[in-house]
Amino acid sequence: MRYRARVEYDGTDFHGFQLQPGRRTVQGELERALTQISAGRRVRVDAAGRTDAGVHARGQVIAFTYAGRLAPDELERSLASLLPRDIGLGPLRRVAAGYNPRHRASQREYRYAIWNGPPRPLRERYALGVREPLDVTAMAAAARELVGRHDFSAFGGRHGQPVRRLERVEVRRSGRQVTIVVVGDAFLRHMVRRLVAAMLRTGRGQADPSDVAEALNRREPAFEGDTAPAQGLCLWRVSLSRRLKEDRNRENDEHEQDIQPA
Amino acid sequence: MRYRARVEYDGTDFHGFQLQPGRRTVQGELERALTQISAGRRVRVDAAGRTDAGVHARGQVIAFTYAGRLAPDELERSLASLLPRDIGLGPLRRVAAGYNPRHRASQREYRYAIWNGPPRPLRERYALGVREPLDVTAMAAAARELVGRHDFSAFGGRHGQPVRRLERVEVRRSGRQVTIVVVGDAFLRHMVRRLVAAMLRTGRGQADPSDVAEALNRREPAFEGDTAPAQGLCLWRVSLSRRLKEDRNRENDEHEQDIQPA
Repeated sequence: MRYRARVEYDGTDFHGFQLQPGRRTVQGELERALTQISAGRRVRVDAAGRTDAGVHARGQVIAFTYAGRLAPDELERSLASLLPRDIGLGPLRRVAAGYNPRHRASQREYRYAIWNGPPRPLRERYALGVREPLDVTAMAAAARELVGRHDFSAFGGRHGQPVRRLERVEVRRSGRQVTIVVVGDAFLRHMVRRLVAAMLRTGRGQADPSDVAEALNRREPAFEGDTAPAQGLCLWRVSLSRRLKEDRNRENDEHEQDIQPA
Repeated sequence: MRYRARVEYDGTDFHGFQLQPGRRTVQGELERALTQISAGRRVRVDAAGRTDAGVHARGQVIAFTYAGRLAPDELERSLASLLPRDIGLGPLRRVAAGYNPRHRASQREYRYAIWNGPPRPLRERYALGVREPLDVTAMAAAARELVGRHDFSAFGGRHGQPVRRLERVEVRRSGRQVTIVVVGDAFLRHMVRRLVAAMLRTGRGQADPSDVAEALNRREPAFEGDTAPAQGLCLWRVSLSRRLKEDRNRENDEHEQDIQPA
């Protein structure tokens, strides 16, 4: 039986999502719990996206194959009871054999949270604290330069195909909370945090929105590779398509399901 | 020079507010930072209330005497830079010699946060997770029984004068978030968490609002001394009076200042 589920985690005490021997990772904890209820047989967990050390997730999507005897609701309860407090598992959904959320993810939404005010420990576990007032209008102008299909070499590592499409990049302020929403089909390593770092420079008056546009056009690592801290970043939502990525590339898919926390 | 300031902290990694040798406490960290900028001379910190291990504060109020040379704004910056990430210091205000926030506190507001839904790690660091649906109407009815001047022996330890006055006890639901607001002049040890535990029993259908009223009237430790977990509790606000407690007891004070986070 193959299952899919939404997973939420507090990334603070994890060395990222991906399995790493001898380190506490989200995949490691999920597989440990699954292996425990599978009579010791190793169960492999696939995910829609790999998050880095310290990055949180509200809407990560995982899939795994379970060969044991538990009914779905018992499986769900057992798993929940075996997971640590910083990982939360949503309801299990049956999916077809071979289902891999990475290949079904048609869009990923990341949110970067900024607390733009004096030190507030209760706010800053899941947000970057920025003391000096940010110019959100300038940040939003920089954000607009990033929307669309671009070569993102300026904001990504040397690995992977650098042409990506960003559907939305928005900067919102609500009192002292500033949220940057980034929605796209796929992302280069550290790309969201590098885009955020560039927008933060703009918000501090250290760069103009046009500098961001020029950096994109130069296609060379920009802004000294500056990367915003992990604690503000959260994988907010993954949109899943009924079709595989390869098929979608041929034809636009109009039937997308949103996996959303309840 | 004597100063007063609002302090916010994430109580998770503290053994409470009060100084304890060999343990990490909020007072300990504050005094360590103050001693460091006072040429090693020990500085004592007074607070409006002592919070237990794991309890958070958004509006704790402290006062201390500083004999060094730093101007208030420099002092504020130095202190902020010496404090750990889980303590945040608000602006310093000059107060009279001998000013003690404990004697000035005319009202204390506590909030207890409950996440009433499936496991959500990003919600449950500062809230108690309760999976079964809570009957908030019953909880609010229990809350109403607690308002006013009562002998709270049912919900407090054997120490201290048990007659206290609760100004407000409210239960609010916003989607899956349930918040219990408790405002009173002073509290017995563990009193708020014991009141919350009784209200949780009511919300789960294990007790009626009338059981809470009867427990109050019996003046004997009630509900097996059940105490709600620390992580949901937060010292939200302290109202300070210009007059001392003794004077207020003689005459009502109409000039109260609210210390509120910005």
